[in-house]
Amino acid sequence: MIKANNSTLKSWIEVPENSDFPIQNIPFGVAKHNNEVFVATRIGDTVINLYKVAKLGYFNIDAEVFISCRLNDFMLLGKQVTRDVRNEISDIFVSTNTEASNNAELQKALINNKEVEMLMPISIGDYTDFYSSEQHAFNVGCLFRDPNNALLPNWKHIPVGYHGRSSSILPSGVDFHRPKGQRKAPTDEMPTFGQSNLLDFELETAFFTYEGKPIGDSISTDEADEYIFGMALLNDWSARDIQGWEYVPLGPFLGKNFASHLSCWIVTLDALEPFRVSGPVQEPKVLPYLEYKGDKHVDINLEVAIKPENTEETIVSKSNYRYMYWNMNQQLAHHSINGCNIKVGDCMGSGTISGPKESEFGSMLEISWKGTKAVKMTDGTERKFINDNDTVIMRGYAEKDGIRIGFGEVKAKVLPVK
Amino acid sequence: MIKANNSTLKSWIEVPENSDFPIQNIPFGVAKHNNEVFVATRIGDTVINLYKVAKLGYFNIDAEVFISCRLNDFMLLGKQVTRDVRNEISDIFVSTNTEASNNAELQKALINNKEVEMLMPISIGDYTDFYSSEQHAFNVGCLFRDPNNALLPNWKHIPVGYHGRSSSILPSGVDFHRPKGQRKAPTDEMPTFGQSNLLDFELETAFFTYEGKPIGDSISTDEADEYIFGMALLNDWSARDIQGWEYVPLGPFLGKNFASHLSCWIVTLDALEPFRVSGPVQEPKVLPYLEYKGDKHVDINLEVAIKPENTEETIVSKSNYRYMYWNMNQQLAHHSINGCNIKVGDCMGSGTISGPKESEFGSMLEISWKGTKAVKMTDGTERKFINDNDTVIMRGYAEKDGIRIGFGEVKAKVLPVK
Repeated sequence: MIKANNSTLKSWIEVPENSDFPIQNIPFGVAKHNNEVFVATRIGDTVINLYKVAKLGYFNIDAEVFISCRLNDFMLLGKQVTRDVRNEISDIFVSTNTEASNNAELQKALINNKEVEMLMPISIGDYTDFYSSEQHAFNVGCLFRDPNNALLPNWKHIPVGYHGRSSSILPSGVDFHRPKGQRKAPTDEMPTFGQSNLLDFELETAFFTYEGKPIGDSISTDEADEYIFGMALLNDWSARDIQGWEYVPLGPFLGKNFASHLSCWIVTLDALEPFRVSGPVQEPKVLPYLEYKGDKHVDINLEVAIKPENTEETIVSKSNYRYMYWNMNQQLAHHSINGCNIKVGDCMGSGTISGPKESEFGSMLEISWKGTKAVKMTDGTERKFINDNDTVIMRGYAEKDGIRIGFGEVKAKVLPVK
Repeated sequence: MIKANNSTLKSWIEVPENSDFPIQNIPFGVAKHNNEVFVATRIGDTVINLYKVAKLGYFNIDAEVFISCRLNDFMLLGKQVTRDVRNEISDIFVSTNTEASNNAELQKALINNKEVEMLMPISIGDYTDFYSSEQHAFNVGCLFRDPNNALLPNWKHIPVGYHGRSSSILPSGVDFHRPKGQRKAPTDEMPTFGQSNLLDFELETAFFTYEGKPIGDSISTDEADEYIFGMALLNDWSARDIQGWEYVPLGPFLGKNFASHLSCWIVTLDALEPFRVSGPVQEPKVLPYLEYKGDKHVDINLEVAIKPENTEETIVSKSNYRYMYWNMNQQLAHHSINGCNIKVGDCMGSGTISGPKESEFGSMLEISWKGTKAVKMTDGTERKFINDNDTVIMRGYAEKDGIRIGFGEVKAKVLPVK
């Protein structure tokens, strides 16, 4: 077992009940405080400046790696080092470490979460988005093609994925403008230009990679865990009307690349290890390079809320990451089977994660069943897609044996078209 | 007129007949010589170390920008600065500048092309590939769909594009292994795993951007030239069998992302200005945001050769960049119309450039008409797609009034599957 995951540990830093950040989490992020930018972790509501901790000699690595605006340099040290640092952080902040809790210099590394601005955690090289939830692929197939042949012939043979745009991935809290572009409904004779009227969220998670192998080499499902640093929540916004007109034959482009939002704390794969579960039986049998051993799915509760301006939020979806058909190991093995080189900081989106129940669907496209059903908000208004000035909030956490490992949230407000 | 484009200029550096690099070109690249890596330009067969030139005080900018393994820092200075530097280089190496030609220190910045290794010129952030040659889209439509409705309904309304993988874009000369993956011919019952048997080149050009506007803002067709640094040749390799099985509904993925190759000298948009030509009449009329003024296409001769191991090359295609339906200005305006933020060093591929004649088709898929016609090599062997140990070479140049502005070449050998 990974030392820092020990469920009996308590921290000398206060952890509120139901916090996403007990001492068993120890996520990594990039924070800004008093104009200083540094790599940080968080316990309870306390953000910890890891540069200051490192300067006190607590770690066996160069402190300079933490005085950075991105986690990439830290990740470049590889899994053994980042795992060691997480274990060392656990040792420092565990309740029995009175040397540390009495160290006045160490106290200077602790900051109240409210005083900190969280920045984009990782400099993303390439962004790949998969399409790995069966219920989501089935729903989309029903809505746009044939309910009797909802899944396309390749879907159960390959973790279908496509390349996305990395420049427009934003950290939680950065609002954005409704996109504009060409739309053409099937009933329209010609395309028109204007704002997207079918703006949607997509409930996703993302994982981030360490530096992979050289171009030409592949990462097997057995090796994949060693190349995965951690996970975050991802809202992969979609403009359904723009997407519907543009995407044949080369896939989504402007319907997707105007913005995606990422939660700011990267929860390590190590911290999620206790929450592994088995995946679905894969039938037809997958090709040997996609076979895997052990429990490689993860039980992570996910939810989406819409908060209209000046009123309370309404939860519109409760899903779970365990609903994935293809797991991260299969995705990474597939991505590299042709020799494609994976780089440090690559972002791999899960695709929209929908569960089997209607209340578990991960996009408004599915929840409103292509605009045929409305969802009521607390202020009495209805939503089929996302309105201007709505804030969409996603949250996620894994929970077992009294330990809750959470991601915090990813949220962003839709501003009117510019 | 841009000063450095003056067709009467001669250099005091020798320029062989039919060189791609007269003093009117002044491309930018990154070179390695004696373990030093630096930003360079080239005149004739002489590579010029711009860091050394800058240290002699010839430019008005910090020399450090040239002691870099990528052009990005230079490009971040913006179009006016890079244009000024190109004009200053012209002033230094013009035949009338006897101060410079007699400067022994300046001579130390000059290196024979054969002694230099050219590296990847730009750190590419996002890579977008368009699909903007009408003949290519028509050919593909005929081969895979219906010759009577070869162009999809959206094709003449939007410059169709998709996101590609930037990590696997390699500089000319770096060989690569034939990819493997899943393939399933329409007649196969189940997919199989193995090497791609339908490996193809795609004859493309690429343009590279300066830092664009903040997310949410768009670049108009009028503004686009100011955001384009220059162009290169791009061989966007495709594994047709892998692609055919995977690409519905989200577009190309592993059939494309194993490798793409780029020529190493970036020819500035300024240098190509004299070769502007008008584009095709666009009917139906495009939406206002895609309208443009002036001649925005460019007359660039392109060719592709296949060189089997131990024998001479055979030219298999002669095309021209003027055959594009959508020009760079339209592509950039479309890419950013939804607020997508363009970053310094983004790579925008043209898509395969096919001319109207069979001899002008830009991929083996088209040349062999989906494997139904073979092309004879000089050694008597035939090709429908690319064999192991074949080297594919692409060249390009613009020529007018006795001035030839070329790109050199992009070449790479296909090694057997790993």
